[in-house]
Amino acid sequence: MKAETNKGIFITFEGIDGSGKSTQMELAAEFLRSREFDVITTREPGGTKLAERIRNVLLDVSLGGCVTPMAELLLYLASRHQHSAEIIAPHLERDGVVLCDRFADSSTAYQGAGRGLGIELVESLNELVIPRWPDLTILIDIPEDKAFSRMGRRSPDRLEKEGINFLRVVRSAFLELSERHPERFAVVESRERLEETATHVRNILERFLAKKL
Amino acid sequence: MKAETNKGIFITFEGIDGSGKSTQMELAAEFLRSREFDVITTREPGGTKLAERIRNVLLDVSLGGCVTPMAELLLYLASRHQHSAEIIAPHLERDGVVLCDRFADSSTAYQGAGRGLGIELVESLNELVIPRWPDLTILIDIPEDKAFSRMGRRSPDRLEKEGINFLRVVRSAFLELSERHPERFAVVESRERLEETATHVRNILERFLAKKL
Repeated sequence: MKAETNKGIFITFEGIDGSGKSTQMELAAEFLRSREFDVITTREPGGTKLAERIRNVLLDVSLGGCVTPMAELLLYLASRHQHSAEIIAPHLERDGVVLCDRFADSSTAYQGAGRGLGIELVESLNELVIPRWPDLTILIDIPEDKAFSRMGRRSPDRLEKEGINFLRVVRSAFLELSERHPERFAVVESRERLEETATHVRNILERFLAKKL
Repeated sequence: MKAETNKGIFITFEGIDGSGKSTQMELAAEFLRSREFDVITTREPGGTKLAERIRNVLLDVSLGGCVTPMAELLLYLASRHQHSAEIIAPHLERDGVVLCDRFADSSTAYQGAGRGLGIELVESLNELVIPRWPDLTILIDIPEDKAFSRMGRRSPDRLEKEGINFLRVVRSAFLELSERHPERFAVVESRERLEETATHVRNILERFLAKKL
């Protein structure tokens, strides 16, 4: 899907589970709304009726071990296309701001690197399903052992059970992607106190807006 | 997914809904079993736990109109990869015969031509998910109006509701594919009396086996 337009602002939040990216996205939304932007927040892979159904299939613990990495990737891509067409592209078309918790880079890091399908293959498949690459991708970076111990307090789903070695590979893929695409990536270290992390994110948004507007 | 082997025999049955291909596949299986082949029959997109769940999503009438053609294609591809890895490839590896009711060519005809995603794009995505192209594809051809009136006797699902114009496009795409890939396609006209059609299919299988064995 190719975008007809460069209207609106498209910002994604990426990082391994436990990085705190979802909280940071909500704080960023508050900040942008205080600046009078028309902001929606959404998440990967959900947000549409179809995508929520696919998400349920993907997170179903009973299927653990019975989903090939390629099938998993294709399910994420299907849900991304639906999500892009129904939610993201229309709000950009209205000149709004879309903040998305996980997007194309998550597939590249998790399925491309983590599951070994290859970064180039996944990036080229992503191209088929997204309206455009994000204008800004904020990577909330955290050491995998710290993320893992944060996650330990929650009941883990199938993907989260894969463990710390998997997280290490994925984290390093995210950092590699930030080096491959420096024009859109900003890396923020996840601090113990979330207000400190939020200040860093806000500074990045300030600089991005100053350049863009 | 690339096959490690050319073992076994892989035969697909294609055609528009109402062509009678499923019945012909079952008769072909009986014939091949009578020749002492180790035959399994399977169908697209089902056959595995994951694929059956995807099939339920795809055939859900309540999602009608809410699934993008690209998302629909990716769901079929996900289910095809799982189906290929769990069912088709292992039986070929055991040197068995796999008969499959719909496979890659259905996506090319339905989503590539019918939904307008493009035949080349869908063929190249199919390449990613299949163990190998079929050794033989039997296309059961039927005029779309005849197929449509046959289907009228059944309760139509979401895809079947698309109507006769859609069937015309898909039928003509199947015929185009048979011309693009004459080395593996055989076209059989669907007759009123299924035993006549079955005789034609059996002749094709005889010739195929004589050449192959």
